[in-house]
Parts: sequence; structure tokens; C-alpha cells
Amino acid sequence: MEKKLVEVCFTPDDYDYFKGRFDIVVVIDVLRATSAICSAIDNGVSSVIPVPTVEEAKSYQDNGYLAGAERQGQIVDGFDFGNSPYSYMNPKLKGKDIVLSTTNGTRAINIAKDAPTVVIGSLINLESLVKWLLKENKNVLCLCSGWKGNFNLEDTICAGAIAHDLLATGKYSSDDDSSVAAKYLYLSSRHNYFGFLKSSSHRRRLKKLKLNKDIKYCLTPNQVNVIPILQNDKIVKLDN
Amino acid sequence: MEKKLVEVCFTPDDYDYFKGRFDIVVVIDVLRATSAICSAIDNGVSSVIPVPTVEEAKSYQDNGYLAGAERQGQIVDGFDFGNSPYSYMNPKLKGKDIVLSTTNGTRAINIAKDAPTVVIGSLINLESLVKWLLKENKNVLCLCSGWKGNFNLEDTICAGAIAHDLLATGKYSSDDDSSVAAKYLYLSSRHNYFGFLKSSSHRRRLKKLKLNKDIKYCLTPNQVNVIPILQNDKIVKLDN
Repeated sequence: MEKKLVEVCFTPDDYDYFKGRFDIVVVIDVLRATSAICSAIDNGVSSVIPVPTVEEAKSYQDNGYLAGAERQGQIVDGFDFGNSPYSYMNPKLKGKDIVLSTTNGTRAINIAKDAPTVVIGSLINLESLVKWLLKENKNVLCLCSGWKGNFNLEDTICAGAIAHDLLATGKYSSDDDSSVAAKYLYLSSRHNYFGFLKSSSHRRRLKKLKLNKDIKYCLTPNQVNVIPILQNDKIVKLDN
Repeated sequence: MEKKLVEVCFTPDDYDYFKGRFDIVVVIDVLRATSAICSAIDNGVSSVIPVPTVEEAKSYQDNGYLAGAERQGQIVDGFDFGNSPYSYMNPKLKGKDIVLSTTNGTRAINIAKDAPTVVIGSLINLESLVKWLLKENKNVLCLCSGWKGNFNLEDTICAGAIAHDLLATGKYSSDDDSSVAAKYLYLSSRHNYFGFLKSSSHRRRLKKLKLNKDIKYCLTPNQVNVIPILQNDKIVKLDN
């Protein structure tokens, strides 16, 4: 039986090279957009509408939606929330459609949206996601959101964890060096994500903003079982 | 005393983000252009003129130069050599100016050429290069040539080795996640480059072309002491 592919794309800027070859794209923005989306969907939010620009988020807000926008790690003035996962645990959001625009994560979702299937990955839904991917048995691309077009460690490690777990079954293969590197970075870090990422630029950035509680949450694997999936431009809960 | 920076840029496509902030750019194309250039300069070649296109190499050849051109890992028809380091050990090349165009390496050299200082790095001149960089005590960017614009493992590991050795002195710091990742990939691979790179796409590509001897040479550290440096568009031996 021919093996399925699992590859890792480091940044949305590299996506063109991978585009069109994968049935499932897993979008990853560990700190913090895709962790927050997993948290929101787990909390019963009806859908998250990802929009690339603050202006679009504002226009939804003007039409009565609850809307979040984050830039440079902080809530944009005038919005209801940013991308702290804790904001999305608010019981008032249950059953609501909410709108979100973030620096990197929603851009990556937007870039991938023509893929047959786009799901949301993070460390907090890692195990459930891998189980579902194995069941689907299709070609998988892990698309890291990066930081403003550049490589980042935490997304790569999460992508490496997914690649590692799929490859370990013997049913998948990887061709690209980025996937091999991601797998090794995961293996180097898996016993202590928090320590390993001490030197990551994004963690230092968020620490300055006093977001250590958020970081700890986002780096703690397997806290939720949901798989958020993009359907008709909205991220909803996959019935799996 | 303020620390100097050492950073790793994964591909020439990412260079814009780093451009202008570094005194020294080390261009790395382990398999095989920069290894071949080190080998040539060590063998007494007077200079290597790197040109980005095959047409330019041809035009030099028409003017009486010995010229090499490599595409897809193979010597381009009509040229004197490709980028096998062994071609450059020929005693007939001593004292000659030669011309070289390769898929990735000469493109990276060309992109970096406006930097104050551009030197050629590889595993085969690693130790001498690091010693010289430490003596210079300036901001260093390791520019990996990648593979057609994409990340590759062997260049990243070589860049990681340089970054690791400079950081270990306590006189340098790194800010970017790409540098942290390169350092960890070096630490994961340093006891067995050949084994670690078994899964690299480039190594598989060259193996298909029966270039295992070249690969072994290029992955064996510290075989030469030269530091090739770009001066007036020619790569010559640095008197150090």
C-alpha cells in the first residue's frame, strides 16, 4: 500500500511550494491563535470566523458580531478580545458566532482555505487531531503560521509532533527537509516544551507582555478533544 | 560589553529580513558548492568567480576561462566541471581564475554580495572559519543556500555549528528562532552527520546520482584551513 505524505511548511510565505498536493492542511499557531480557537470551540462557541484584516473584523463588529483582533500580541483598541485562550472560556460566548483577526494565525488560515480540508491544530488538541488524521488516512500538510512571515519554533515543534506521530505508524512518509527538521526539533523538546522554548523569540515577546499564563496553557498538550474545521469560511466543531 | 549577534537565515528567499544588519555574511552550500570552493582555494586556485546563470559562465568560457556549471546535481553540457569538490583538486587549476555557476550556492553568494564582508563556509573549513570569526568579533549572519528556495538540513546544520560555537564563548547572542533551531539540529546531528542526513532530500538526490563519495567528503569537518572571501566579485583566499 502506498504511503500517505505528511509534510511541514514553516511559514505561509513557503506555502506556494506545497500548495495543491495535500488533502488536509492543519493550520498551526500555537502562541496563540489556534490554541485560542481550539479553546473557543471546546467551550461551545458556535463558530469562529477568521478574517485577515482588522478592518474586516471591525466591519463584522459593526454588524453586531462579537469580534476579536490581536496585533503585536495585544488586543486591538475597540475589540472585545484578542487571542488569549482564556478570553474564549467565557460562558457568554457559548452558541455564538465570533470573529477573529490575528497577526499570523488567521493569515495562515486564509492562505490555506482552498485546500480540500482545513483543520486547526495546536498542542492543546494534539492527540485527538492525530487520531482523527490517522483515521482519515490522507496526505497531510502542517502549515505553521510563523511570525510575520518568518520561521518560529513553537509552531514547528507542534507540526513536528504531528509528523512524528503519523510517521511512527509506518503508514506515512516525508520527503522534505523541513519535515525532518520539525520532527527532530519535536524530539529535542518534547519532555519540556516550556524550557525548550525559553529561548524562542515569541515566548520572550509574550513574556514581556506578561502573558506567561497564556504561554503555559498553550504549551500544555491534550487539554481538549475538539478538532475545529473550516467550513464555508467559518471554523466549526468537527463531528468526529 | 555588548554581545555580537549571530543569526541563521534558512534560504536566500528569507535574506531580505536579515539584510543590512550584519558585518559578515557566511554563505553555506554544504552539498556541494561551498565545499567545492573551499577545496578549490585550498588547492591553490587563484580565484573562483561565482556567477548566477549558466549563460554568464558560458560567456566567461568563450573568453578563455575554465568554467564550471552545475544544475540538478549534474555538470551542464559543455562545461569543464560541475561542483564536485574532487574536480577542484586537479593540479592543473593551481594559479588559475575559474568561473562557477551552481543551482543554489552561487545564487546565495550573489544575493549577499552587498554585505561588508562575504566569506564561504562549509563543514570542511568549519574550525578555521569559527576561529577567524571569533577574532573578527563582528555581527555574523550564516546564510544557507537551501534547495531552490527551500530549507535544507545540511546547510542548516553547518550554520548551527557556527552559531553554537560562537554562542558557546558567551560573546555572542541570537534573537531569531531560526538560529535556535539550527543550533539544536546541529546538536542532534553532530556525532553522525552522515547518518543524520540519510533522510535529507538532497542527500537522497545526490545518492541517486552516485555521488556518495562527494557527500562523504562534504560531511567530513575540518579538512582544510582556508577561508575563501569575496573581493571585487571574485572569491579568493583570505590571508589570515
